[in-house]
Amino acid sequence: MKTTRLEAFSDGVLAIIITIMVLGLKVPHAADLAVLKPLLPVLLSYVLSFIYVGIYWNNHHHLFHSTEEVSGGILWANLHLLFWLSLFPFTTAWVGENHLGSIPTAVYGFVLLMAAIAYYILQSTIIKQQGPDSLLAAAIGNDWKGKVSPTLYLLAIPLAFVSPWISHALFITVALLWLAPDPRIERVLVDKEKE
Amino acid sequence: MKTTRLEAFSDGVLAIIITIMVLGLKVPHAADLAVLKPLLPVLLSYVLSFIYVGIYWNNHHHLFHSTEEVSGGILWANLHLLFWLSLFPFTTAWVGENHLGSIPTAVYGFVLLMAAIAYYILQSTIIKQQGPDSLLAAAIGNDWKGKVSPTLYLLAIPLAFVSPWISHALFITVALLWLAPDPRIERVLVDKEKE
Amino acid sequence: MKTTRLEAFSDGVLAIIITIMVLGLKVPHAADLAVLKPLLPVLLSYVLSFIYVGIYWNNHHHLFHSTEEVSGGILWANLHLLFWLSLFPFTTAWVGENHLGSIPTAVYGFVLLMAAIAYYILQSTIIKQQGPDSLLAAAIGNDWKGKVSPTLYLLAIPLAFVSPWISHALFITVALLWLAPDPRIERVLVDKEKE
Amino acid sequence: MKTTRLEAFSDGVLAIIITIMVLGLKVPHAADLAVLKPLLPVLLSYVLSFIYVGIYWNNHHHLFHSTEEVSGGILWANLHLLFWLSLFPFTTAWVGENHLGSIPTAVYGFVLLMAAIAYYILQSTIIKQQGPDSLLAAAIGNDWKGKVSPTLYLLAIPLAFVSPWISHALFITVALLWLAPDPRIERVLVDKEKE
Repeated sequence: MKTTRLEAFSDGVLAIIITIMVLGLKVPHAADLAVLKPLLPVLLSYVLSFIYVGIYWNNHHHLFHSTEEVSGGILWANLHLLFWLSLFPFTTAWVGENHLGSIPTAVYGFVLLMAAIAYYILQSTIIKQQGPDSLLAAAIGNDWKGKVSPTLYLLAIPLAFVSPWISHALFITVALLWLAPDPRIERVLVDKEKE
Repeated sequence: MKTTRLEAFSDGVLAIIITIMVLGLKVPHAADLAVLKPLLPVLLSYVLSFIYVGIYWNNHHHLFHSTEEVSGGILWANLHLLFWLSLFPFTTAWVGENHLGSIPTAVYGFVLLMAAIAYYILQSTIIKQQGPDSLLAAAIGNDWKGKVSPTLYLLAIPLAFVSPWISHALFITVALLWLAPDPRIERVLVDKEKE
Repeated sequence: MKTTRLEAFSDGVLAIIITIMVLGLKVPHAADLAVLKPLLPVLLSYVLSFIYVGIYWNNHHHLFHSTEEVSGGILWANLHLLFWLSLFPFTTAWVGENHLGSIPTAVYGFVLLMAAIAYYILQSTIIKQQGPDSLLAAAIGNDWKGKVSPTLYLLAIPLAFVSPWISHALFITVALLWLAPDPRIERVLVDKEKE
Repeated sequence: MKTTRLEAFSDGVLAIIITIMVLGLKVPHAADLAVLKPLLPVLLSYVLSFIYVGIYWNNHHHLFHSTEEVSGGILWANLHLLFWLSLFPFTTAWVGENHLGSIPTAVYGFVLLMAAIAYYILQSTIIKQQGPDSLLAAAIGNDWKGKVSPTLYLLAIPLAFVSPWISHALFITVALLWLAPDPRIERVLVDKEKE
């Protein structure tokens, strides 16, 4: 299968995930400002998940930058990642509706953790297919972000029972980590392509 | 019509089907773990249907691998397949909400059966258009999977009234059958293209 | 704007319309066959609307077959068509939930009529842009289908108050009219392109 | 990242936003004309938002007309715009359900304002990347529409508490401003490309 078709399908799924999450913001029947107050945590968890899906969409592109054909293994590793991402609308709405309660927060963290693991599996599958000269392996280097993120999610799950705010602080930290521009990766890619 | 546009439209529909199925996971109002228990069968049937749509997406690609133009017959055979696949979110949610009850399981199997028949019609229409030297006909060979799958669905429908678990075991068996890598087909395609 | 981007956007909207219509099939809470009975008219109106969206998708492709750039006028004529098509999920569900009642059937016919008019406006805008040698004008010829369809919708609206069944018979007639292969159009297009 | 992939993703998100807005039109259970009356304001706000998303889609295309590669900054500025647009289905349904009440109208205006600001940020980011010879900067000229629109939204927010009708008149005015063909921009683009 051509990489372009897999990318187009994944983009389609990500576009739908990022958009239907807004359906979690239930339209209130009254027209006063008070009805917006319970929607605030839903909106905040929507913002966080929106950024997460954006990060995944952006990174997904980097993954397939240097692959032209995808094997059956990559295809299913990619669907596995999309599966965990497709649960975001559910966990986002649940966390929001319950004002960041402990159990919804822990479940939110669990789905983030599983998505991170699925991403790692997908990345490893592509590197394995590319062989020892893998452009992707060179680009990600020691992949410290890819190792720190699941560790922080893993911490956030039990900490949700101490205080969900700690967990959400950790989720936001990870998001900021990925949002910060990382010129090194793009430079490596550009350098490698020039060779 | 160009095959690429038909593929892009089908990919779009499949991406939406695979994603809106998650709306069947109704967001609970309470925040304790007990509310997740009734969601477990919904999640399990979601996983199964997710894999099924993934398999159809993957196979759909193989179907159109060697066709460049599509006739009106192929176009409608393809829409017929998409119609049955579009019922997956409904049957998936119904099976899940009723803890794998007999009737929902039988209806789930019926929709799987109709999708398999629609797939077979689409495949035959393409082979007929390609003529006696059909690359697709050579690639699928005796098509034992395409014959075993509807047979197992047909068995699963009445067996749902004995025990829905038998039916679901059959559905999972068919899914595993298609998930298992089938290097033979890809080899035939590669060989044929080299000629 | 390139025609390809307009086609991709329209395909996206049509793919979503054709798929979210299935959300009109509300998942019943009980697991017996009796709960499927009230869903039958919803399913039937879903089938009809699915075929209609399929026909529009197919015809939409023909419209843009011979245009490479689109003007602002074409762009908005196309969005106008998509607007009326986007109301299909609403009218389909309303007709289905009310067992083909008179008013929902008349409204269903009205939206079909407006979509047909929007299609005619889009077609005329493209022909005007293409000028006197318009390939599209030659291909559609006297456009008898494009004239008969809105006439039948117009008849179906008042007749819904006599009997909704007459209206639905008319809707099905129009669908069959367009489903029937029309080799003449494709031949003209092929002939013209050869010149 | 290639501009084409960013455009395809944005088109996907816009296609979903424009289509799921129709889910705000709740299917009534009764079949008489009276049930359509409360739906009328929902339909009207749907029409307005549909036109707004259409305008954004059209302008979005102009933005990326002369860029081939997008930086991380552009990517996130684009996601920021999509975020505010993704709130349209919520504000549209809320305004409609409450018969154009003051607070929903003000919130509707606020989201329009934020989308306009996000659009401005995206535009500035692209111009900055293109440098002093920016084709886009030349095309938009003094950008009077881009300055008038947020001013009118800003006016519409407090005026919603005087009368929501004034605010809606302002929203419609802005929409008409953008709908009116602007041959100057297209001419500049064509001229510049010829050079």
